[in-house]
Amino acid sequence: MAKRIGKRTIILENKPHIIGYGSVVGKKEYEGPIGHEFDAHDDDSRFGEDSYEKAESLLQKIALETAMRKANVNENDIKMIFAGDLLNQCIGSYFGLRSKGIPLIGLYGACSTMTLGLSLASIMIDSGAADITAAVTSSHFCSAERQYRFPLEYGAVRPQTAQWTVTGSGATVLSSERLEGKPYIDKVCFGEIEDLGITDTNNMGAAMAPSAASTIKHFLEDTNTTLHDYDLVITGDLGKVGTDLLYELLEGDGIDIRCRHSDCGLIIFDRDRQDVHAGGSGCGCSAAVLNSFVMHRFESGDFKNILFMSTGALMSPTSSLQGETIPGISHLINIKI
Amino acid sequence: MAKRIGKRTIILENKPHIIGYGSVVGKKEYEGPIGHEFDAHDDDSRFGEDSYEKAESLLQKIALETAMRKANVNENDIKMIFAGDLLNQCIGSYFGLRSKGIPLIGLYGACSTMTLGLSLASIMIDSGAADITAAVTSSHFCSAERQYRFPLEYGAVRPQTAQWTVTGSGATVLSSERLEGKPYIDKVCFGEIEDLGITDTNNMGAAMAPSAASTIKHFLEDTNTTLHDYDLVITGDLGKVGTDLLYELLEGDGIDIRCRHSDCGLIIFDRDRQDVHAGGSGCGCSAAVLNSFVMHRFESGDFKNILFMSTGALMSPTSSLQGETIPGISHLINIKI
Repeated sequence: MAKRIGKRTIILENKPHIIGYGSVVGKKEYEGPIGHEFDAHDDDSRFGEDSYEKAESLLQKIALETAMRKANVNENDIKMIFAGDLLNQCIGSYFGLRSKGIPLIGLYGACSTMTLGLSLASIMIDSGAADITAAVTSSHFCSAERQYRFPLEYGAVRPQTAQWTVTGSGATVLSSERLEGKPYIDKVCFGEIEDLGITDTNNMGAAMAPSAASTIKHFLEDTNTTLHDYDLVITGDLGKVGTDLLYELLEGDGIDIRCRHSDCGLIIFDRDRQDVHAGGSGCGCSAAVLNSFVMHRFESGDFKNILFMSTGALMSPTSSLQGETIPGISHLINIKI
Repeated sequence: MAKRIGKRTIILENKPHIIGYGSVVGKKEYEGPIGHEFDAHDDDSRFGEDSYEKAESLLQKIALETAMRKANVNENDIKMIFAGDLLNQCIGSYFGLRSKGIPLIGLYGACSTMTLGLSLASIMIDSGAADITAAVTSSHFCSAERQYRFPLEYGAVRPQTAQWTVTGSGATVLSSERLEGKPYIDKVCFGEIEDLGITDTNNMGAAMAPSAASTIKHFLEDTNTTLHDYDLVITGDLGKVGTDLLYELLEGDGIDIRCRHSDCGLIIFDRDRQDVHAGGSGCGCSAAVLNSFVMHRFESGDFKNILFMSTGALMSPTSSLQGETIPGISHLINIKI
């Protein structure tokens, strides 16, 4: 049984263990600082498909199949998949996973989707509803640019606050079996929507930072812990602008996160060398980094107890055209080994 | 603890009870055969807002607040909301519920979202992760038409297989408290994607029917029951074309569902009188009918044990332009009193 503590945090008593993980990225991500940590990459942004959207679907399939292979499970073993992406109607997930014959829960949480899916997948195991579950998300620079901003052919100039959508996917397979030496999800904390009135669609980091700050604060209060109890807090894709704002917001609450924080959007690209402006973004960003870099550090013993939080900016081109602000939402998981 | 039986069905041991429900619809739905059963309606399809999208957000807010009022709970009581809609990036849900301060799980399951959300909301209660949860979905004819098909101003002609997207929203509040005389969720069955190769975006009923047939079949097999064990099977929005195909598909498996089946898309409109062609659709369709008509029949004693299944067609305008088929997915809940 799961147990709720405080306002938002849930302790998992069954401790869903991570038995497999997989990641796949595009050329730019492979050329980045942690490129060698990903399971697969391709130099062609279409990955051999005839559209970017079909390529994104393929990314989800590759990531999930890689994670399943490492977990040594097949389609019949996995009882539910939690999947999402940034494409309208989540076609990346639904078309990528349609041949699997596994009950599929489609999620939309913008870039917060990976930890949203992992939180739900964990509770399913904890509840007894499933013994093995999986979570997978993706994003693709080219499909995202043309859907959210401009067709690439326009060559639109991007401001320095803009982030670069990661072409990539990550998948995690969870099991109810307690396996010595495998990391497990200890707690989850679902996010509430936070809205500080940001309207600049080229500054998603600033839109997400308030929700990241809120979720960290709630989690620490609920668990009666401090940052010193964790090796690291890793956010999804705040980038440079969002990270600076996160520090500022938490400082206002007396929480100094500077020495214990990394951001997947800043890990995956080299901002000085790769012209990505404020850093990486997209729900494939935190998914790919979690299911490579982060998992490897659990294996090597570097990490023993971390907070991992995908961060999402909630908007559509329509909502922005109609003058809406961009609220944010961030879901957190506490991973231990 | 939840208990899995068979391939896809989950028995809830804690029996989440439905303590509140709310529905709101537009003018056409109010003028339909069950118009008097809805809690609220408006003659203006903008519901006083300055865009259809903002109107759809307002619908979710109204439905949830109505359900909360009937359940006699406030924002602090509800631990998680499961919400979704048909709009790109689920802005109907996220913008409609952003001021609530309640952890929000964004779902995308096309028109299957209401039972997807209710299934997850039920398991959260069963698992102990929450004592009170809610599920809410919406759709809006005008926002859906311009997003999926043509701006209304074009006056495009609709073929007879097309369905009419319901302008409406429905919300359900679930509680772990066992309350005598209130209906409860006994079992849930998550859907797998079924794809028989339908490509006609004006024939969603046909696209959804195979998944509806598959989920019913799996549920009956998993539970070792027959249709005679239930008062009725209610599908979400198969409409006339999808309903006929469902009968045909199940007959092939020796299951005659004709005398025990209703479809929300056929209940909500009068096809002879209201010019909706094959019937109603949209994820507000099953949500509004469940949270009015169906709940009222549990209250009156007409229903004691039903299967309720929202049905979704998975596509986007982009996927269809790229020549993709339209797979379907259907999630089922077994409601008893």
